[in-house]
Formats: sequence, structure tokens, C-alpha cells
Amino acid sequence: MVTSKNLYGVILAGGAGTRFWPLSREMSPKQLLRVFGAESLIWQTIKRLLPLIPQEQVYVVANNKLVEEIRTHLITEKEPFKNVGYLVEPHARNTAPAIGLAAVHLLNINPDAVMAVLPSDHLLGNPDEFLSVLTSAEELASAGYLVTLGLKPSRPETGFGYIKLGARLQGHGETYPSYAVERFVEKPDRETAELYVRAGDYFWNSGMFVFKASTVLDEIERLMPELYSLLMRFKELSLNEWNSEKTKELFCEAESTSIDYGVMEKSDKVAVVPVELDWVDVGSLTAIGDFLKKDERGNAIAGNVIDIDSEDSIVFGENRLVATLGLKDTVVIDTHDATLVCSKDRAQDVRKVVDVLKARNAEEYLVHRTMYRPWGCYTLLERGPGFKIKVIEVKPGERLSLQMHHHRSEHWVVIAGTATVTRGGEVFNVHVNESTFIPPSTMHRLENPGMIPLKIIEVQNGEYLEEDDIMRTEDDYARQ
Amino acid sequence: MVTSKNLYGVILAGGAGTRFWPLSREMSPKQLLRVFGAESLIWQTIKRLLPLIPQEQVYVVANNKLVEEIRTHLITEKEPFKNVGYLVEPHARNTAPAIGLAAVHLLNINPDAVMAVLPSDHLLGNPDEFLSVLTSAEELASAGYLVTLGLKPSRPETGFGYIKLGARLQGHGETYPSYAVERFVEKPDRETAELYVRAGDYFWNSGMFVFKASTVLDEIERLMPELYSLLMRFKELSLNEWNSEKTKELFCEAESTSIDYGVMEKSDKVAVVPVELDWVDVGSLTAIGDFLKKDERGNAIAGNVIDIDSEDSIVFGENRLVATLGLKDTVVIDTHDATLVCSKDRAQDVRKVVDVLKARNAEEYLVHRTMYRPWGCYTLLERGPGFKIKVIEVKPGERLSLQMHHHRSEHWVVIAGTATVTRGGEVFNVHVNESTFIPPSTMHRLENPGMIPLKIIEVQNGEYLEEDDIMRTEDDYARQ
Repeated sequence: MVTSKNLYGVILAGGAGTRFWPLSREMSPKQLLRVFGAESLIWQTIKRLLPLIPQEQVYVVANNKLVEEIRTHLITEKEPFKNVGYLVEPHARNTAPAIGLAAVHLLNINPDAVMAVLPSDHLLGNPDEFLSVLTSAEELASAGYLVTLGLKPSRPETGFGYIKLGARLQGHGETYPSYAVERFVEKPDRETAELYVRAGDYFWNSGMFVFKASTVLDEIERLMPELYSLLMRFKELSLNEWNSEKTKELFCEAESTSIDYGVMEKSDKVAVVPVELDWVDVGSLTAIGDFLKKDERGNAIAGNVIDIDSEDSIVFGENRLVATLGLKDTVVIDTHDATLVCSKDRAQDVRKVVDVLKARNAEEYLVHRTMYRPWGCYTLLERGPGFKIKVIEVKPGERLSLQMHHHRSEHWVVIAGTATVTRGGEVFNVHVNESTFIPPSTMHRLENPGMIPLKIIEVQNGEYLEEDDIMRTEDDYARQ
Repeated sequence: MVTSKNLYGVILAGGAGTRFWPLSREMSPKQLLRVFGAESLIWQTIKRLLPLIPQEQVYVVANNKLVEEIRTHLITEKEPFKNVGYLVEPHARNTAPAIGLAAVHLLNINPDAVMAVLPSDHLLGNPDEFLSVLTSAEELASAGYLVTLGLKPSRPETGFGYIKLGARLQGHGETYPSYAVERFVEKPDRETAELYVRAGDYFWNSGMFVFKASTVLDEIERLMPELYSLLMRFKELSLNEWNSEKTKELFCEAESTSIDYGVMEKSDKVAVVPVELDWVDVGSLTAIGDFLKKDERGNAIAGNVIDIDSEDSIVFGENRLVATLGLKDTVVIDTHDATLVCSKDRAQDVRKVVDVLKARNAEEYLVHRTMYRPWGCYTLLERGPGFKIKVIEVKPGERLSLQMHHHRSEHWVVIAGTATVTRGGEVFNVHVNESTFIPPSTMHRLENPGMIPLKIIEVQNGEYLEEDDIMRTEDDYARQ
């Protein structure tokens, strides 16, 4: 397959994935989870595109806070993606503003840019088929269509919208014929969904679009003039300026609207390309049940789990022991700091739990105990009044920034590897089973000079132990 | 109330409480749990007796391993019991051998000894009533009866055996009339239980007995001659000798038999005293539901729990966050290292989970992460290859033994209070936010010389990190 010169991948990765709690957190949304295979959903999404779209033509769109997490994530996966671009949404405003911004940027760099807009939280079993339908869709898009991929429904799903095919478009595609849209329909009830599946001309609205940046901007100008004039103010700015306080305020005014509602359902340039893809939308925790192999009683079980006599349940443990006994249609998700137990048919309502956590400002909403960094990772083991304990892992050859904390001292015990420690004016090595101490307000740096991972236990002491008590002076990874 | 000269409390505390996992562990059985009130069930059981029976006349019977845990537990409760006696069962052999051993000991020290044999895992709402029925039962026991307390059934419980009253015994008790037993009946089905409750002359077999040591031994001699001759071999031994390897082997031969089956159901000296007590048998995890106040949807919820729309469920969290959503008749028990989720009607089968854990030799079966010691407690935070992290709390004025480990070094960071550290020949203080280091094979001791609790983080390093790598030379608490 030859990579395309004008085709860009635009990965929408802004979703907070609240329906995936406690596996997902605000700072670790579901697209970053490695629950579905060894690599994350977003990594899989990008990997899948690479035969057709080079990394340099792939952009990830997400809000300010998430973009940093995603960047760190993608450059620390086993096969890292270092050349992917990032577009910062100043605020989360649904898909129309996000796609509009991406179109503005792409048009700036390539007047013939065609965008393949993709969600970042799905699984796909047949990537070759997917790439060839994309190629076909690119051709249509180049001819001025707003192309949406219509997925052949494999079951009467009530969680998706459907597209009813209209007349066949002439002169385009043999392998993948394309159609006008007769109508878009909202998520149906069960009975209606069954009718749609039987009818044969209803397809799932996949949320995957292919169009020229210029075409979609023209349609936004026509159908969403307010958004258009907002987008035009970004046209003149550099990518760095997109995320200034001023543009943030500006973007606040954008209406939160989906591209479906704002453009696709109203435009007469829409074409649908029906395709059969082995596609799994990772919409709620029950998707884990679809992904895992089921046992003879219909249970999907993963982790350190002892189950006795449960049926049709999903039990997913990260690390701790989970015992289940005589459950039916129940979902149990266990993570280090939180456990969710819910009735299967209420999995969509997990967001209500997240709302409560958010209102409480609970840490279990925001972060996971393990945070990945360009140099390695750290895991919070425990916090209590006046102390915090972490395991810090530094990859061979990597080092943390030269930094200082005003309110805490740090005690480091090396449990594997060798550390080179900078403390004030001194530089010295600390070996396995040795320890050292960093007093408050002392410049310090931790480095792994060795060939194997460095692992230390850090005990922090002090009155204020938040992550923002950090003053960085030098950083290999150019962080603030 | 005047304390009784001849009445002894015999608390049967040998139960492993496997149906209470994960709250209970082999080394922390349910009688030591503080789930039902601020104090443990066994503490409450002893406390309740004290107006009638002085501490010195209370004996706890349990196996070798448990006795040490119970002793530590009882002397470290807020109101400690330091004068309670302990009788070690060389092996767990159900209640007949255990009661026989207690009778042998009591007869040795007091020929008129009357034993009030009580389980250690129940709750009682009306202790005054209980004490006056005990007084009445002591009188009957002194006259040569084997007295069993029959509890007026408050519901058609299918989990207990019942006693059908026979003829009233003349000449004993006005407040608490006593009866011969017509028959003992096994746990009935629901329908039969309802008949029993309506009949009015069926009472719950409470497992609470009062008899003279001499009477019960005479009946054991008559009805269980093998057990009797075994018991007689203990008569000549000191209490310390009871737990020697030789007696252990001897006791192995004892048949595992309950006192109900071995004696009470066969003896013609049995008298039942019916009484109405506000009594809760803490038999399975659903007892938590009976103890806690229920919400308007019938849920019993305690801990850091967010529940949305569950019904008739029990959710008990020790510390971590638990979220429940749309559950029905479900029990969720969350502890630091393990979570149990089970259908309410399967709560009795939790022991099956414990069997699996036992077969796996899993730590989650054996111990809790926090272990109480005479000097304070320690909590295991994390273990991994080559390291183990604990928080150690030492009470003011207390100290650990002078000890040494061959296979590990220990790094101590003081996070609260002041430590006096003995390390080889040195003695020095370590203050909050300071740390020190104990190399392997170095005699050391940790002491809290201060007025507030000392809290340290201990990071252990080494190839072998089990608790048995300890050589004690001096110990304030006379441990081996």
C-alpha cells in the first residue's frame, strides 16, 4: 500500500471515558487503557492507519490537560509514536468545533488536505478492509463529498444511531459503492433496531468521516456560521497560540455541537459508504465482556479472580484478589484504589458514580495510582498525614528533571539498579539497598546511569505533598 | 451484683470464621473483628460477664496459634483484659474435647467449679437479663444439671438447631423455670421452622451451657469413654505441658465431636432454661446487614461507599472506595487486599472461596495487612521482589524486642514522633523527617521514648523477607 500524500488522520481523543470508571480516570481516559490487548486503544487506532497515512500526517485532538498525557503515553509504548502531531482543543465542545479546528490547521498546511476523522476508542478486527474503504472514501472526499462510513449492523444494537441509505451515487467506486443518505436516525428501541437490521439498508453511524478540510469548512460556514467565524480567528494563530488564555476564552463561546447534528444531518454533500467491519465500539464496561473469552457459564473473567458459580458476569481485576460467588449479570471492576460493582444493565450509568466523585473532588476520579512519564513511571503506594510513599521506576539512561520542592523532603531507598543522585552541589551514586535523603529547598535530580531499570522507594515528608510543589530548572523532556 | 466464687467463664474462641472472609482471616478470625461496634465480639463477650465473673475466672479456649493473637488482642483493646486465662487446645477437635479440657483444668483448681460455656462470636442486646439467667443456671448446675440456654425464637430461623421442652423441673427457679428436654432437633427447613415458632415450646439451641466441671466430666466418662481417658492424661500435666509435641500427638486421636452430639443429646441430666435474649449469632456476612442501620432501599452500607439505586444489599468497605450501582440482594465486602462480591443467598458458601485460597496457600487467607502487637501495630503497604514496605506504629513508652535479621536490611523513616534506635553498640534518637538504616545481622531495637505515637516507614531489602527471619534476644513481652 502506498501512503497517501493528502490524507490526514484526525484522531478525536477528547473523551473523558466516564463510563469506563474505575479503569479510566480523567487523566487516564479509556483510549489510553491497555485493557483490550497489550496496547492501548489509541495506539491501536494510529497503528492501523500507518500503512496508508504516515505518522507525520496523523493528528491527535484533545484538550490541553489530556494532550500531555497522550503524548507521554504514545512515546512510552513499546513501539513509540514520536512523530504524531497534537491539536489542542482549548475546551471540550463536542466534535464539530474540534473537527473545525483540525480542518483550519490542515487547510493552513495543505489546501488539498483530506481528513479521516476517527474516534480513539474502538477495536477493529480487519484492518486491511478498513484501509481499503478509507482509500475509496478519500477518492469520494476529493470529489467534494462529506463521506461517512456506514457499518453493516451485526446485531440490533440500541446504543448507536443508524443511517438509511438513499440513491446510489454514480461514477464512484466499484469495490465500495456509495450512496446518498435518505435519513439519519437516532438510537432506536429494540424492536425498531430489529426492523433496521432486517431491512438491510440501515447502517450504523460509526462516527468515522472522510472529507476535505476545505469542504467541511465550507459547510460549517454555511450551516454553523457562528462556529465558522470563531474558527477563522484561529486561522491566523500559531498552534502554540491556540492554547493561550485568550483563545480559551474565545473557544468557551463555541456551542457544544456534534458534527453529525451540526453538519452531516443538514448538508446535501453527504455520501455514505457501507462496509462490513469487525468493529467494536468500546462504549461501556460491558465491552470487556465482548473482548474477553467467556467461560462455560458466560462469564468474562480476567485478573486475580476466584469465581464460584457466577453466570453471565464480567469480573476484571487489575491486581488485588477478587472473589465472586453466585453472581448473575453483574459487572465487577477492581482497581488499586477503587472497586465498582454494578448490574450489567446499568453499566451506562457508571457516569453517575463519576459525577458524585467529581463533585467530591475525589482523587479516584482524577488519576490512577501509576502515572507514566517520559523517563519511566511512578506509583503512589500510600499517603497519610504528613507522608506519601511512591515507587519510582527510571528507565536505563533516563533522568528526571533537575528540581526542587519547598515543602517536602524525600528519602530514597534503592531496591533495584543504581541511581546517580544530584543533591545541591554533590553528585553521587546510590546502589541497591542503600538510601539517601533530599532536604527541602535543595536542587536535586535522579538519574539511571545503568543498563537495568532503577527502582526506588520514595518516602516524602512534609506539610504539603501535592505534585505542584515542584520547581524544574532543567528537563530533558521540556516540561514546565 | 456479687461476683460468683465458683462460676467460671469458658469462652470457646477456636472458630476460624471462614464464612467471614475477607473480613476474617485465619490469624484474625471473626471473634477479633471490630465490625460490630468499637470493640471485638470476644471482648464484648468477656466484658458482659465481668459483673458476675471476675476476669481471673474467665478462660479463653483456642488453638495454639490463635491463643497468642487473642491474648495480644485482649491486652491491646482500649479497655484491656490482662488477667484472663488461656487454655490451649493442642488441635481443633470441635467442642466436646475443648470443653472436656477446660473441665479438667477447672476441676484441678476448684472441685466445685461451675462452667459457663459461651461462644465468642455473638452479640447480645440485654446483658442484665443474660447475667440473671446465668445466675439461675448456675444454681441448677450446682444441683447436678447440665444446663443449656434455650433462646425464644424471634423468627423461623433455619440456620439453628431447636430444643423441644419437656416437663417442667420442680423446685428450681421462679424467674427462670427450667425444663427437661423432650428432644433436640436439627436445623429445620423453613416450613418446619415456622411450625416450631408457632408451637411455642421450641427454643433455639444457643450453644451456651452451664454445668459443673465434675458433672460434665462424669457424663463424658459415661458417654465418651475414649475422650475421657484422653482427658485424664492431661489431668496430671501443667498447663504449659498441654501444648507439648507429645500432647499434640495425643490430642490428635480425639474424635472431632460437638458437646451437643457427644453429651447433651444423650445425657439424662440435661435441663433447659428458656429465655428471651436480644441475641445475634454472627454466623455469616449477612449478619452485618442485621447489625447496621438500613437505608430506605433496605441496604446496609458502611465505609467509603457510593451507592446508586441498589436494593437490599450489604456493602461494607474498610478503607478503599467502593461504588455500587443497581445491585439487588448482593453482598460486597472490601478490604485492603481482597474484595468479595456475592449473592446474599450464597453467603454461607464463602467458605468455598476460603478453601480455594487455602489450597493456594494465599496470604489473603492467612493474615490481614495490619497486625496488632503488644507494642503497637504494623501494616504491610506493599511487597515486591526484594522489598517489603511497612508502616510501624509504636505506642508511647513501648519498644520492640532486641532483634536481628540475617537476610534483610531495614531503612526507617520517621514520619511522626521520635524513635530511640539501638543499632549494634550505638543508641541514638531519630526525629520526625529523619531516617536511619539497619544492616543485616545487626542487633537492633526500636523504642518510642516519647509521649505521642511513633510512626515510621520501614523499607526492607533482601532476598528473604518473611517474618520468621527474626532472632529475639530481649523482649518486654516474653515472646520467642
